[in-house]
Amino acid sequence: MGQKVITFGELLLRLSPQNNLRFTQTEEYEAVYGGGEANTAVSLSNFGVDVSYVTKLPAHPIGQAGVNSLRKFGVDTSNIVRGGQQIGIYFLEKKTSQRPTSVIYNRAGSAFALSKCAEYDWNKIFEGVTWFHFSGITPAVSPELADACIAACKEAKKRGITVSCDLNYRSKLWDGATANKVMSEICPYVDICVANEDDAIGIFQLDTTGQEHPQEYVAQELMKMFPFKCVASVWRTETSITTFKLQSMIYTDKAYYSKEFYMSILDYIGAGDAYCAGLIYAYINNYDTQKAVEFANAASCLKHTVSGDFNLVTVDEVNKLAFAAAGNEVSR
Amino acid sequence: MGQKVITFGELLLRLSPQNNLRFTQTEEYEAVYGGGEANTAVSLSNFGVDVSYVTKLPAHPIGQAGVNSLRKFGVDTSNIVRGGQQIGIYFLEKKTSQRPTSVIYNRAGSAFALSKCAEYDWNKIFEGVTWFHFSGITPAVSPELADACIAACKEAKKRGITVSCDLNYRSKLWDGATANKVMSEICPYVDICVANEDDAIGIFQLDTTGQEHPQEYVAQELMKMFPFKCVASVWRTETSITTFKLQSMIYTDKAYYSKEFYMSILDYIGAGDAYCAGLIYAYINNYDTQKAVEFANAASCLKHTVSGDFNLVTVDEVNKLAFAAAGNEVSR
Amino acid sequence: MGQKVITFGELLLRLSPQNNLRFTQTEEYEAVYGGGEANTAVSLSNFGVDVSYVTKLPAHPIGQAGVNSLRKFGVDTSNIVRGGQQIGIYFLEKKTSQRPTSVIYNRAGSAFALSKCAEYDWNKIFEGVTWFHFSGITPAVSPELADACIAACKEAKKRGITVSCDLNYRSKLWDGATANKVMSEICPYVDICVANEDDAIGIFQLDTTGQEHPQEYVAQELMKMFPFKCVASVWRTETSITTFKLQSMIYTDKAYYSKEFYMSILDYIGAGDAYCAGLIYAYINNYDTQKAVEFANAASCLKHTVSGDFNLVTVDEVNKLAFAAAGNEVSR
Amino acid sequence: MGQKVITFGELLLRLSPQNNLRFTQTEEYEAVYGGGEANTAVSLSNFGVDVSYVTKLPAHPIGQAGVNSLRKFGVDTSNIVRGGQQIGIYFLEKKTSQRPTSVIYNRAGSAFALSKCAEYDWNKIFEGVTWFHFSGITPAVSPELADACIAACKEAKKRGITVSCDLNYRSKLWDGATANKVMSEICPYVDICVANEDDAIGIFQLDTTGQEHPQEYVAQELMKMFPFKCVASVWRTETSITTFKLQSMIYTDKAYYSKEFYMSILDYIGAGDAYCAGLIYAYINNYDTQKAVEFANAASCLKHTVSGDFNLVTVDEVNKLAFAAAGNEVSR
Amino acid sequence: MGQKVITFGELLLRLSPQNNLRFTQTEEYEAVYGGGEANTAVSLSNFGVDVSYVTKLPAHPIGQAGVNSLRKFGVDTSNIVRGGQQIGIYFLEKKTSQRPTSVIYNRAGSAFALSKCAEYDWNKIFEGVTWFHFSGITPAVSPELADACIAACKEAKKRGITVSCDLNYRSKLWDGATANKVMSEICPYVDICVANEDDAIGIFQLDTTGQEHPQEYVAQELMKMFPFKCVASVWRTETSITTFKLQSMIYTDKAYYSKEFYMSILDYIGAGDAYCAGLIYAYINNYDTQKAVEFANAASCLKHTVSGDFNLVTVDEVNKLAFAAAGNEVSR
Amino acid sequence: MGQKVITFGELLLRLSPQNNLRFTQTEEYEAVYGGGEANTAVSLSNFGVDVSYVTKLPAHPIGQAGVNSLRKFGVDTSNIVRGGQQIGIYFLEKKTSQRPTSVIYNRAGSAFALSKCAEYDWNKIFEGVTWFHFSGITPAVSPELADACIAACKEAKKRGITVSCDLNYRSKLWDGATANKVMSEICPYVDICVANEDDAIGIFQLDTTGQEHPQEYVAQELMKMFPFKCVASVWRTETSITTFKLQSMIYTDKAYYSKEFYMSILDYIGAGDAYCAGLIYAYINNYDTQKAVEFANAASCLKHTVSGDFNLVTVDEVNKLAFAAAGNEVSR
Repeated sequence: MGQKVITFGELLLRLSPQNNLRFTQTEEYEAVYGGGEANTAVSLSNFGVDVSYVTKLPAHPIGQAGVNSLRKFGVDTSNIVRGGQQIGIYFLEKKTSQRPTSVIYNRAGSAFALSKCAEYDWNKIFEGVTWFHFSGITPAVSPELADACIAACKEAKKRGITVSCDLNYRSKLWDGATANKVMSEICPYVDICVANEDDAIGIFQLDTTGQEHPQEYVAQELMKMFPFKCVASVWRTETSITTFKLQSMIYTDKAYYSKEFYMSILDYIGAGDAYCAGLIYAYINNYDTQKAVEFANAASCLKHTVSGDFNLVTVDEVNKLAFAAAGNEVSR
Repeated sequence: MGQKVITFGELLLRLSPQNNLRFTQTEEYEAVYGGGEANTAVSLSNFGVDVSYVTKLPAHPIGQAGVNSLRKFGVDTSNIVRGGQQIGIYFLEKKTSQRPTSVIYNRAGSAFALSKCAEYDWNKIFEGVTWFHFSGITPAVSPELADACIAACKEAKKRGITVSCDLNYRSKLWDGATANKVMSEICPYVDICVANEDDAIGIFQLDTTGQEHPQEYVAQELMKMFPFKCVASVWRTETSITTFKLQSMIYTDKAYYSKEFYMSILDYIGAGDAYCAGLIYAYINNYDTQKAVEFANAASCLKHTVSGDFNLVTVDEVNKLAFAAAGNEVSR
Repeated sequence: MGQKVITFGELLLRLSPQNNLRFTQTEEYEAVYGGGEANTAVSLSNFGVDVSYVTKLPAHPIGQAGVNSLRKFGVDTSNIVRGGQQIGIYFLEKKTSQRPTSVIYNRAGSAFALSKCAEYDWNKIFEGVTWFHFSGITPAVSPELADACIAACKEAKKRGITVSCDLNYRSKLWDGATANKVMSEICPYVDICVANEDDAIGIFQLDTTGQEHPQEYVAQELMKMFPFKCVASVWRTETSITTFKLQSMIYTDKAYYSKEFYMSILDYIGAGDAYCAGLIYAYINNYDTQKAVEFANAASCLKHTVSGDFNLVTVDEVNKLAFAAAGNEVSR
Repeated sequence: MGQKVITFGELLLRLSPQNNLRFTQTEEYEAVYGGGEANTAVSLSNFGVDVSYVTKLPAHPIGQAGVNSLRKFGVDTSNIVRGGQQIGIYFLEKKTSQRPTSVIYNRAGSAFALSKCAEYDWNKIFEGVTWFHFSGITPAVSPELADACIAACKEAKKRGITVSCDLNYRSKLWDGATANKVMSEICPYVDICVANEDDAIGIFQLDTTGQEHPQEYVAQELMKMFPFKCVASVWRTETSITTFKLQSMIYTDKAYYSKEFYMSILDYIGAGDAYCAGLIYAYINNYDTQKAVEFANAASCLKHTVSGDFNLVTVDEVNKLAFAAAGNEVSR
Repeated sequence: MGQKVITFGELLLRLSPQNNLRFTQTEEYEAVYGGGEANTAVSLSNFGVDVSYVTKLPAHPIGQAGVNSLRKFGVDTSNIVRGGQQIGIYFLEKKTSQRPTSVIYNRAGSAFALSKCAEYDWNKIFEGVTWFHFSGITPAVSPELADACIAACKEAKKRGITVSCDLNYRSKLWDGATANKVMSEICPYVDICVANEDDAIGIFQLDTTGQEHPQEYVAQELMKMFPFKCVASVWRTETSITTFKLQSMIYTDKAYYSKEFYMSILDYIGAGDAYCAGLIYAYINNYDTQKAVEFANAASCLKHTVSGDFNLVTVDEVNKLAFAAAGNEVSR
Repeated sequence: MGQKVITFGELLLRLSPQNNLRFTQTEEYEAVYGGGEANTAVSLSNFGVDVSYVTKLPAHPIGQAGVNSLRKFGVDTSNIVRGGQQIGIYFLEKKTSQRPTSVIYNRAGSAFALSKCAEYDWNKIFEGVTWFHFSGITPAVSPELADACIAACKEAKKRGITVSCDLNYRSKLWDGATANKVMSEICPYVDICVANEDDAIGIFQLDTTGQEHPQEYVAQELMKMFPFKCVASVWRTETSITTFKLQSMIYTDKAYYSKEFYMSILDYIGAGDAYCAGLIYAYINNYDTQKAVEFANAASCLKHTVSGDFNLVTVDEVNKLAFAAAGNEVSR
């Protein structure tokens, strides 16, 4: 379709115990790769979109395994800078009834975290590109990477590339004041902003107390601050110990709400990234706003049924859930 | 008890990813054997019934493993024809919240699919037999096997053997017109018919639109068409993303409904086959109709808690669920 | 804190099929160690309490693996008597929807079951000890062990050690008449009694029929019979096929009820033992009764989320669930 | 062929750590069933021989799983007495270079060990039988079982059934003096004796010191003591840390030696039982002595390549190894 | 380097039991993809060569998983025809001491086997291509595919593309007479022929009896028959039950022999395909003949250490083994 | 025995693919903990020695799992400093025939690597201690840790504690010049030095070229440089692709050589650490030098048969291998 997407961020090795074991029980780890922008890239590639992922990874076999995990699903990896010594790792203990998800980072000192702004040649990377996506995690990793995001945004603007950013506040990586300062510099370049309540509170210190429609409020406030074309948001609510409700919204001049899904969850990670991929796919394919929010919401819903960070579903599967009167029984 | 049952159909190797992984993720497959009529045979054997299974399997070790999977649970395998080159396979991806079950068949060209009507010597097989069971899958596999079913039915009738058939419509194996033609030839020999709404619509093009009691309607219509002694049916309804409701009915001159079970499901496959086994057991043991529908329904309910195609439960376990005031806590 | 706890009972090797398989399906067993009083000891050690476990285990490597399983979590094992030939084993098939939990004991003839009263030197074991805990399972294993419990209780009383006992009736180990006789001899030494309805019915033949608050009634009746300082109880109720409700109570001069938790359950075993550990921790740390019942109840709730017999949670985690306005989402 | 074989002994649950882990490392056990005479029965069934196994097993699911493990390979289990509480267990740690195999028994108190002589109705069991096989392990388990062996031998003799016995001395089950006394009572009924050097030393206190051909010496001495038609023996010698040499002998009026195999070993257990099955098959099929020793030796060699207690090989596979100029490359 | 390679053949799903289990034991299969020409493609891609693989695979997820297995290692999959219903499967039981490798094919009726010559558009596929490789398996699958090979060879010749063919005789796919006829039509287009003794005997009925240097003889005879630039061969010899010797040769105007490796083998499959990849890499990079045979031989040796069909080694690793004085100890 | 040992070093999380898979293949990692001095500590504890391990580990659950891995085998962990963010990790790909072991470090930035000299309070740690052991890895991790080693050595000397050091050169952690400088400062405090050829070459730039007895030469040269009481060494030689020869030596005033073991190897890591533990045990128990070298050598030999970093063997097992005429057959 002539569209080409770039995403930029860190690829982490995710290590998680199987069978809901605790860290102090496990003697083996399930190993997959993931990371916000990589997840979005894989999701887009599974939707048939031409997408290339930018990061830095060590040249050693553990880094290569990361590259392979992306190639496997068709993501172009030729823009990945190779070098450095370590790969970022995160340990994941899965939520089990009242026991919450636990994440332990082992990513300080990774090749990406130590990479320099100048290692990313945006002029070359953006050749033929029509869409640039990243999240607030990338500038949070280091000041150099904040600079890299800004440099990328400027180059993108110069070339008329659409820029989308998922604010994705991570309090373990930076504090609100720093986040506010950096993101305030970045957001003027962003066309499409994905932001949930926590992001808005964490980064821009918005106060949603007492708001009846907090997602709308967040969108309105952010659109006052920055020239976003729209603000999108996805949120899940625990409706019982076994069930969550998922819904999302795109705010342009008004709020477009998706329908709601009641889900049980196989994997809690990457649902926001899958939502971003759904949005980008919808916009690239000129879906109207209501159709876009349904598609993105269904993509995010299906992500909750896929183990690992990556959303391994097809456009057909998303469309069927978003728009068809689905029967969940076996087809045979 | 002097009763001896024959079931006839294809035994497939079932390959499914563990831990709810997708086909594009898994690097190993859980391997079990199954198939409608084999499932019913194993279930009956676990109930203590003398049962023999008729099929064709290659003489090679993968075929032998299929034979062993039946012997393990006490099914007589001496009537299995050995020969041919390939075993039928089906790949199974398990339903996970909004993501539906996915089945991919790799059964064309199997030893059974290529087998000839004449390979099954019903005169010899039916010696001492009192009950013959098969499903609509068997005649759907090939015209030769449709002929084999008809031949078996004729021989059974001649000998006064009770014949039960689960209509089991499979749209991936044949179209409605063909199914109608073949099943219309078979059904006159059938004493006990198991049929749910989808089967009746798929094979006999019944229209259940607007029916308040569609199962009753289906039973009544089928009993107008064929000289069935009764029509039985089992159905599950998704009541929430984590829960299904299971109920069943036997229609003789009126409808006998079972109580309802609210279940979470470990394995979606084989519940209908388990229901058939429950029915056959109940009839062989002269249960009255209400007791029969409760027993069969409870057997089907328990199947949903057993991994694989086979229902590995005892008569005591079924009775306890069907008729006792069950407490589910640990006994120790 | 100067507090030191002793628990006394049998450590069993627990063998359970993975992935909810039945005993007749599995070709491998998950192997963990557990047993009522060992579970309480591990739980206390994870809470930072100085605790030592008393039992008898064979000197061979399977016995050593049992010792190691306790040391791993910091329990002192220097009081364990080593010798004998066999380890007690229990096979566990996990509850799956309508299919109930199944436990098969293989513990007759174990080193502990054959051990003699005289092998436990309470004078030496109780040096510096402030709390002694055991359950009704220990005296049920053999008359010698009933004697050992009485000897321990007497020595504890002499030294002013607090004694707690979880009545824990096991009908597979002894009958009600014997239990009544032995426990009636033991209970006068007990300060804190943990007892649910089934225990009271099984051991003391209480009749709770028609009682509006059966837990209160049991506590009141038991306190009439024995000089307990309090009676505590925890109970779960199946509220749907996927959800249980957990609540507990401490009765002193009146009933203190905890709040309720709606849980899905990963592991059904050891929740009562975790409750005892919560109680002991709360009393050692001078929690008031309401805070104690909340802490113990939350500890028991979290146990249901941990695979195996042992409750692998920290004081922080219990406090967060018991007293904080918990959000269950990922922290990262 | 009209031949029907009975074997009699204990079926044990074998639990072994995977991947050569030690007992103190493993958190899961591979579970298979085995036991000398059961192993011989399965092996014979895999050779196409009609064979029935006699033992006692609990009626519970762990006992049923044992029954199923035999049915799976076609062994008749209708003569198995069902009852009792416990199953015999053995823990197995596999030999790894200089680290020797370690076996820990947990079989005292099993249903079989506690079974009575009178529970085995040899008159009924031996109907239509032509061959009876057991090993020295069975009478070692208990005096009642020693009596059962003697009763079986007497009944066998009365009916003209061929009796074979593998002496199989187990020093963990009985001492030499008792063994001598009991086996001296049994051996007069035995036609075919399988005995290696250790058995002869352990049970009959033979002294093989300085013998050039110890296997021949043992055979000759035993044949002086008892009216055996032949004595057969199989032995392996460690030729390097990775390789064993396997050879065997049948002594009638002279020694017939098999060729030697140099093997690496996947599983050390059950090779002698596989040898017995090879012998019985050969005699039933009227192989001459040299051909018999080659067949039995090759069967035993192949057992070393099969994981678990059972020898899962066909007559064709044994013949190919015993008699063909084997090429070990892939056939495709 | 401007070189681009095409390989053409069938991608099979390979299912093998883990831990050297037999087919009749396993309850799960390790699943990888492989096939002669796919293996060569992956190997080349791991060497940094630009390579594209041509085959036909179903559009369903099992087919997609096959595509992904190639993309993961960087093979271009854009020339793969998608369609058809079934994937070819082969079951693999691994050689274990005297027990030989066992392969069972389940590939009849696969999308590739049923594909038509006209589905492969060589004019488009060969754009920019410099090397074409396939093996004798491809024309053996069906007459249509034999035609496709011939069509490809003709188009390759027209464009000056180098053609290499590994004769790879498979007696389970065709007989010698058919093979001779078809391969005699193909070989005139081949520049580089890979052939071992079995291939030459099977396809061209050469008689190597009594030849001192059978590989040289085969090469000389083949070069008399066809205008090959060279004939290469690799062979392994069982030197003990745990060790094989690997050596290879390239014959141009004389024989160039590699050094010998004594190996223990993790995986027996794909060593010849890895050898072909080594050869192609060496020729593309203008290695002299002696260096080429050492590189290809070392690549094949390393393949024996990699599980699965694919050779996952780098040029550095091959060079280190082929040309360095290797120390095998840990580097850290 | 009144002896108490301290070891000091880094505990790493070791992640390795199972079944000899490569890093680019695995989707799960076996997780164990290890590290030179921790390995020695666990080994000593398994020998019944009172040993405490000093390191720094994060307070989070991954750090706690490391603590637990030591407690499990009885090592005292009360001297471990808790704090920091990350745990050191190493990825391990196991040697497979010609494919060498591959180690990838991810340990920069670990809590230990960033720890300060002042965090280790040797005055408190050494209370009641009689032996201090560390290796050359610890000072190589950082200058602060080099200082910590020196401070520990000085305190040890002051208290008359025996000091042993395994030189253990790691070229990935420091270069020869730095190593020489630091180790030259440390070695004057060392009583017992363990050093193989590579260590001596790497750290002290010794030249062993042409030495007939390089281990003796190294020992003699080191004893010229430092006031060691003895120098010990263990070395393995690849004698075939499946077999290594292990031997060791203690040099006092002359060389005492152990006997040789021909081993196949399950795990290549930690054999030197096990050797150190053997030496320390032998010296603590006043073995003479020849007996000491045999014990230590046998301990190291057995380590090669145990998976993971830790040597899980008992004194009895080592003695049996070192001094008994071992038969490797099953005892049962």
